[in-house]
Amino acid sequence: MRTIGAVVFPGFELLDIYGPLEMFGMLADDITIRMVAESAGPVECGIGPKTVIDDRFSDNIQYDILLLPGGPGTRREVNNKALGDWLRGQAGAAELITSVCTGSAILAAAGLLDGKRATTNKNAFTWATSFGPNVDWLCQARWTEDEKFFTSSGVSAGMDMSLAVIARLFGEEMAEQVAVWAEYDWHRDPDWDPFARIHGLV
Amino acid sequence: MRTIGAVVFPGFELLDIYGPLEMFGMLADDITIRMVAESAGPVECGIGPKTVIDDRFSDNIQYDILLLPGGPGTRREVNNKALGDWLRGQAGAAELITSVCTGSAILAAAGLLDGKRATTNKNAFTWATSFGPNVDWLCQARWTEDEKFFTSSGVSAGMDMSLAVIARLFGEEMAEQVAVWAEYDWHRDPDWDPFARIHGLV
Repeated sequence: MRTIGAVVFPGFELLDIYGPLEMFGMLADDITIRMVAESAGPVECGIGPKTVIDDRFSDNIQYDILLLPGGPGTRREVNNKALGDWLRGQAGAAELITSVCTGSAILAAAGLLDGKRATTNKNAFTWATSFGPNVDWLCQARWTEDEKFFTSSGVSAGMDMSLAVIARLFGEEMAEQVAVWAEYDWHRDPDWDPFARIHGLV
Repeated sequence: MRTIGAVVFPGFELLDIYGPLEMFGMLADDITIRMVAESAGPVECGIGPKTVIDDRFSDNIQYDILLLPGGPGTRREVNNKALGDWLRGQAGAAELITSVCTGSAILAAAGLLDGKRATTNKNAFTWATSFGPNVDWLCQARWTEDEKFFTSSGVSAGMDMSLAVIARLFGEEMAEQVAVWAEYDWHRDPDWDPFARIHGLV
C-alpha cells in the first residue's frame, strides 16, 4: 500500500489535484490518498471550492508519492520557505515526486529539479522556468519523467501524467484499465503537446 | 452572473464534479460556484477527499445551473426522496440541468428526464437506465443535449459536456479558449464515444 500526499495551498488549481486523484483513487486497494497542507483547516482553491485537510506539514508523515498542483497560489508559494523545507525533507525518502502545471516552479524554487528534465504550464512558461536556471526545461512535453520526478504541462495534463505514473508502478495494462474506467482518452505519448505551439513556444 | 449549484453526496465521483468546475471556474466573472448538499458539513467523495459545503437544500436557493455527479453514492441517492424533491423543485426555474456519469440515473429516478434524450456511464449503463423507462437513452454518446438538460457519459466526459455548456451560453470561441487554458483536448463531437464499443453497447 502506497500513500499519496496531495499538497494543497490557497489558490491551488482544482483539476491539477483532482484529475490525478481520480486516476489514483481507482486503485484504492493499493493507494491511500491524504490531503496535506501547511496548516489545518479547509483550503480554498482558486475558484471557490474548499478541501478538508487530513495532515499538516508538522505531522511529519513521510509519503510515498507527492502530488504538487499549480494555480494562482503558486505565485506566493514559490517563496514559501515552510513548503520548500518540507518538500526537501520529503524528497529523499519519497518514491515519486509529481507536479502538475506551475507546481514544477515550486519544486524548482526548492532546488529539487536541478539537473533534471521538467516541464510546466505552457501559458506561464517564462515565469515558471525562471525559478530553475539549472533545470532542463522542455517547452514541448505533455509530461516529463526523470528518475523519481514526474512533471506535467498545464491543468488537464496531470491526468495523462498520473496514468504514466500508474503505468510505471503497476504496469501499462493497469493504466489502460484506469483510463477506460474513467472513460478518459489517455494521451500516452509524452511528446504530444499542441499547446506549446499555440503559446508560441515552438 | 450565473450561479452553479454543484450537488455532492457521500460517495460522489471526484472528477465528475471537479472536471466541469475547473472549466466553469475559468469564467469567474460570469459564473459563481456553490457546493450544495442535503446537510451541512464536509462531504466525502468515493476515494477519500472531503469537500466543504456552501449551501444546504433547506437554504432554498434557486441555482441557474445544476451539476449532478455520479459515483458509488448514486446507488443510494436514486432512492433519496429529499434529493429527488429538491431537484424537482429546482428544475422549473433552472436555466440548465447537467449530470455526469450515473448522475443521470438520479435525474431519471426523479422523473425529470422522461421523454428526453440522455446518456450515462457506459460501464453502468444497464443499472443507470433502469431508472428511466420513459427516457430516450443513447448508448453511444459522449454527452447529450435536450432543451435544458445536458447529460454526459462516465467521469471524464463531464469535461467535454461542460465545454459544450459553455459554448451554448458564451459561444464556441469562449469554450475553445477555456479548453486551451486548461490545456485540454476537447472532444467537441457529442457522438465520439469509443467506450460504448469497449463495453459492448454497440
